[in-house]
Amino acid sequence: MAKTQTLPSAERPKPTGAAPKEVKKAPAGVDQAGAGSQTAADPSLARLAANRVVIENVSPEVDGGRFPAKSHVGDCFTVEADIFADGHDKIDAAFLIRRADQQEWREAPMAYFDNDRWRGFVMLDENARHVFTVIAWRDLFASWRDEVSKKHAAGVPIALELTEGRLLLERTLAEGERGSSDDRSALESLLDELGAAEDDAARLARLMAQETAALMKRVGIRSNLSRYERELELVVDRKAAAVSAWYEVFPRSMSNDPNRHGTFDDVIARLPYVRDLGFDVLYFPPIHPIGRAFRKGKNNSLTPGPDDPGSPYAIGSPEGGHDAIHPELGTFDDFARLVSAARDHGLEIALDFAIQCSQDHPWIKEHPEWFEWRPDGTIRYAENPPKKYEDIVHVHFYDEALPAVWYAFRDIFLFWIDKGVKIFRVDNPHTKPVPFWEWVIREIQDRHPDVIFLAEAFTKPKMMKRLAKVGFPQSYSYFTWRNTKWELTQYLTELTRTECRHYMRPNFFVNTPDINPTYLQTSGRPGFRTRLVLAATLAGNYGVYNGYELCEAAPVPGREEYLDSEKYEIKARDWDTPEHIRPDIRLVNRLRRDHPALHSFTDLAFYNAWNDNILYYGKATPAKDDFLLFAVNLDPHHTQSAHFEVPLWEFGLPDEASMNVEDLVTGERFVWNGKVQHVTLDPQQRPYAIWRLNPPGELR
Amino acid sequence: MAKTQTLPSAERPKPTGAAPKEVKKAPAGVDQAGAGSQTAADPSLARLAANRVVIENVSPEVDGGRFPAKSHVGDCFTVEADIFADGHDKIDAAFLIRRADQQEWREAPMAYFDNDRWRGFVMLDENARHVFTVIAWRDLFASWRDEVSKKHAAGVPIALELTEGRLLLERTLAEGERGSSDDRSALESLLDELGAAEDDAARLARLMAQETAALMKRVGIRSNLSRYERELELVVDRKAAAVSAWYEVFPRSMSNDPNRHGTFDDVIARLPYVRDLGFDVLYFPPIHPIGRAFRKGKNNSLTPGPDDPGSPYAIGSPEGGHDAIHPELGTFDDFARLVSAARDHGLEIALDFAIQCSQDHPWIKEHPEWFEWRPDGTIRYAENPPKKYEDIVHVHFYDEALPAVWYAFRDIFLFWIDKGVKIFRVDNPHTKPVPFWEWVIREIQDRHPDVIFLAEAFTKPKMMKRLAKVGFPQSYSYFTWRNTKWELTQYLTELTRTECRHYMRPNFFVNTPDINPTYLQTSGRPGFRTRLVLAATLAGNYGVYNGYELCEAAPVPGREEYLDSEKYEIKARDWDTPEHIRPDIRLVNRLRRDHPALHSFTDLAFYNAWNDNILYYGKATPAKDDFLLFAVNLDPHHTQSAHFEVPLWEFGLPDEASMNVEDLVTGERFVWNGKVQHVTLDPQQRPYAIWRLNPPGELR
Repeated sequence: MAKTQTLPSAERPKPTGAAPKEVKKAPAGVDQAGAGSQTAADPSLARLAANRVVIENVSPEVDGGRFPAKSHVGDCFTVEADIFADGHDKIDAAFLIRRADQQEWREAPMAYFDNDRWRGFVMLDENARHVFTVIAWRDLFASWRDEVSKKHAAGVPIALELTEGRLLLERTLAEGERGSSDDRSALESLLDELGAAEDDAARLARLMAQETAALMKRVGIRSNLSRYERELELVVDRKAAAVSAWYEVFPRSMSNDPNRHGTFDDVIARLPYVRDLGFDVLYFPPIHPIGRAFRKGKNNSLTPGPDDPGSPYAIGSPEGGHDAIHPELGTFDDFARLVSAARDHGLEIALDFAIQCSQDHPWIKEHPEWFEWRPDGTIRYAENPPKKYEDIVHVHFYDEALPAVWYAFRDIFLFWIDKGVKIFRVDNPHTKPVPFWEWVIREIQDRHPDVIFLAEAFTKPKMMKRLAKVGFPQSYSYFTWRNTKWELTQYLTELTRTECRHYMRPNFFVNTPDINPTYLQTSGRPGFRTRLVLAATLAGNYGVYNGYELCEAAPVPGREEYLDSEKYEIKARDWDTPEHIRPDIRLVNRLRRDHPALHSFTDLAFYNAWNDNILYYGKATPAKDDFLLFAVNLDPHHTQSAHFEVPLWEFGLPDEASMNVEDLVTGERFVWNGKVQHVTLDPQQRPYAIWRLNPPGELR
Repeated sequence: MAKTQTLPSAERPKPTGAAPKEVKKAPAGVDQAGAGSQTAADPSLARLAANRVVIENVSPEVDGGRFPAKSHVGDCFTVEADIFADGHDKIDAAFLIRRADQQEWREAPMAYFDNDRWRGFVMLDENARHVFTVIAWRDLFASWRDEVSKKHAAGVPIALELTEGRLLLERTLAEGERGSSDDRSALESLLDELGAAEDDAARLARLMAQETAALMKRVGIRSNLSRYERELELVVDRKAAAVSAWYEVFPRSMSNDPNRHGTFDDVIARLPYVRDLGFDVLYFPPIHPIGRAFRKGKNNSLTPGPDDPGSPYAIGSPEGGHDAIHPELGTFDDFARLVSAARDHGLEIALDFAIQCSQDHPWIKEHPEWFEWRPDGTIRYAENPPKKYEDIVHVHFYDEALPAVWYAFRDIFLFWIDKGVKIFRVDNPHTKPVPFWEWVIREIQDRHPDVIFLAEAFTKPKMMKRLAKVGFPQSYSYFTWRNTKWELTQYLTELTRTECRHYMRPNFFVNTPDINPTYLQTSGRPGFRTRLVLAATLAGNYGVYNGYELCEAAPVPGREEYLDSEKYEIKARDWDTPEHIRPDIRLVNRLRRDHPALHSFTDLAFYNAWNDNILYYGKATPAKDDFLLFAVNLDPHHTQSAHFEVPLWEFGLPDEASMNVEDLVTGERFVWNGKVQHVTLDPQQRPYAIWRLNPPGELR
């Protein structure tokens, strides 16, 4: 934690030798003036001169610093930049990072790695908004050392250079402000030793010693200390923003009796089941009172029966709106017990946040100015011409509703946070003004940095990304519609290799109440196992809507809707059908907990398997101490086999090397000899293989 | 030239029909309040709310707006942006551009073209710094029109929608501020007509008419008018910054007598020759007094003869420094005559600007604080350990030299500008502080926007690009070292297709006094013809150092230096050697003047020719009314032939189509039938082919 200098230092040792003759203008008494003092009359010159060392192309930087990048607690946060200067002098660099609400900078060294690119990292341990920037400077001692070593190697006399080296040390002692008191004592001792040294060879040895270089790195004056023009924001979320397994249920179905409305107590009774599967987050569609006006019946019909419960997305009735609980689910006390019981089971409750109202929502009478009225005095309901959605009206965010609606919805978030909810799945955020999300997420996270928002936007790619940029810690994705090897490789490469990796964290849902994927409608059980493994191992966050474990796939014909959708009725299920895939779910969720390689979304690599039906990829920690390989048969109907390349090169091993392997599905251990191996994946028996690599000499 | 609104307008028509019952809070009397008024107490909310329509990924934008993009007079300047909003309402967009020193914005419409990307353009006609930004808004009338057309097509009753349309027109008349008085009269008439219309069908026809849509595009209220957060800079240079042909000579050799120092008058006598070749710029290495101390002799020897003239880069003697003329070249009056005579020949004089001093430079005594002194009182001269360059000392830019040296060199530029010089080739800018260039180029261009600087930096790629970003209108390039088809394709693709196309204009020199390219040392005359055509047709700016037209290539063995380099001696040449390639030079320079396709650097496309020794590419205007094809044999030793694809698809023609062709080398005209054609290029006879395409029906 070094406090850094803010003024550029002098560029070079001052001339302490004989002054040149015929000096018209004598050097000023104060010869260390930086850009700030002599150029105050020319602010443009002063501003530019202050940053002699070029720092550019800083990463992560989202849209020129317009938006924060994202990281999470426990992450190794890496900063890169292009850094270089005029001429041949040596330079050095670091990045500075601090909590946005604190003034003290933490400094992390950066190191050159290639083509003027520098890199450094810190481990992040605070769930808070941060800012960071990059500094760089000319390293006078390193430049001196380089010059002297070259001249000495060439046999050029260096007596004068040795004097210059000593003067640089003296100046550092006199003017430098860095290093510990021990360092400064060491510098004094070094100067004493130089004075007492018997000859130039001894002085040279002392000055060129590695420990002298290390000391000068700590205490040396940072000449032309330059600073990147921007301070960049970094949101450090808690780890669950980056690594989480979601399970979605309709609480009203938790009675498992279509004739009895489920309650929060029914959900409590269900917690051991969810926990046994290994999920982290239990997510509910809206739990608020449901409107009666224009209520939808089973299968989205316009003619509901008297007992049809309606869609929970038609929020609001005389019993209340977004800050109320549907009475049949229970009371706030019941809800509090549920939140507490979930916590006891290692689960967090996530709520739906849907900005829309039924025509019975209390706000319509309380705040008519938040809604749109037509010339005939009727309220404007949702339409997608010529389709009408009369059970839903939209809230306005501008005109008379600005800023009242903004505050109202912020306060709804705060209300539920106060009830113990820290995760919100936001319904259709792309149909609400984007600035609202940027504002409200910051409003909430400034107070509660541990709150997580998942953007349920299935829309065009740029809107998906914009919502992530403005602050959503998690985003729904196109995963459900990426099925082939080419599609998955392209999409994952985009997500993990392009700039969006800095701000967008996809949550790969295998299904949702709105998406009964075409692939699963015909794949049978093998497809469910395949898609589960893909979602759980390709993404840091993934989710399952209940029924998936039973391989439910009956569609509304020709559509990706579920037949007899739970959105419109209370469902009971045969949880013990022999079709179920609970062992697969338990396995992948256990692997996700146990394996650090699965805790980073971006540490993904696709490798060669010579079969377009087998997706073959690896996930590994940066140190490669946890290295997993996955081979997944994307064809649910046929056995597929392939030769594939074991990435021996990732361990610096030759193609003929042997590799110890642990099969994480069966527990078997064996050895692969050579780079090319073969696998057969029968969808009925073994649709996927998961291996852990243990390079020789590291058998674990 | 519309002045644009600065406040976002209301989002929707106000409810003018029957008020809803039971209004707790009546709509405010003023219902049009934008984000600014109601949210003053919450600046973050107000700021965000003001930009409901998302505008991002604006192009050109260099480093998040840190640096200006570049364009030139006569260029079609294109702006692109990703623009979209929440929901399904129609939006529209434009960009605003103005001179940086004027307040009045000019507005250019943008149009949607793909995947939320919008594009617009203006023709630029002023050599001045500009700023631009992008605006977008929700188009209420277009949204209304879309909704009504869908409902009408589906047979849904639309009486209420017609009322809403009329109300929208009324509101536009009452509140709108856009459009001419004629437009507003037309709007009034339209409303009268609607009132008089006999039925809804007539009203519908009137409201849906194309002319109504056009009128509303002109006068419609721009709802939620949003503006990109940044105003971006654009340097509009004069055309010579983007399109120019340079010819370099040492004036002292223009006597063509090794025993007589050439003069400016000798250069004047040479102007007809240069003009005949078709060049635009005549460029000289430094013309200042040359130091005597440590003067270099022939072939860079340390032992000069008494008559050796020295390197012109050892600037400064008792006769003067950077603001003086080497006495043997002539006087300032002679120089003025030369500048004037050159202008009469259609040529501009470009001077070298080299920031370095001989040990005889007057500044060393006048300003010792601008130089570095060693502990023994000697001046520090240039070194690249263990090599020494005692004839050169470097000037400092920091410490006591800041800001005096900055002003001194700026004033040197201004001095020569006052003498009529508007183009400077800057020697080794990468060894001087980068901020100096950013500052001084802006200082000069603020006074003289027509001044052009060419950065002679041959260094690492990121420094090359940084120098272009900070302001150099032209840059030397790696062209001299890109010889193979793969190298040329890669390099030109980087230059013309990646972000650097917005700020970097390469000048492709085929040779320089410092670079006698290896390729040319063994290629013989065919290679000179090939490299000339490549430079002159691939780049907007290109240059030739004299002697090239005579196929001079004798090297210092094993190096890219010329033997008996003109840098150290006065050269005489046999200008009439039969080896010369003056016809090729005249041809390419004539084509460059006559063909608009050669006036844009970025309108380059590589096409397929199935031979790795034949580079085959096209240059075309955006309208394709000037479409040139080039096939160049890169192998100077062997005849090469290839089948190649005629890019019929660029004209929307099928593979079987015919194309009228004009051979621009021979003047022949003929027809190609079908997409695949064949060419044979004999390096001795015809190392390159240049064709102009005239699609059928457009025979010219």
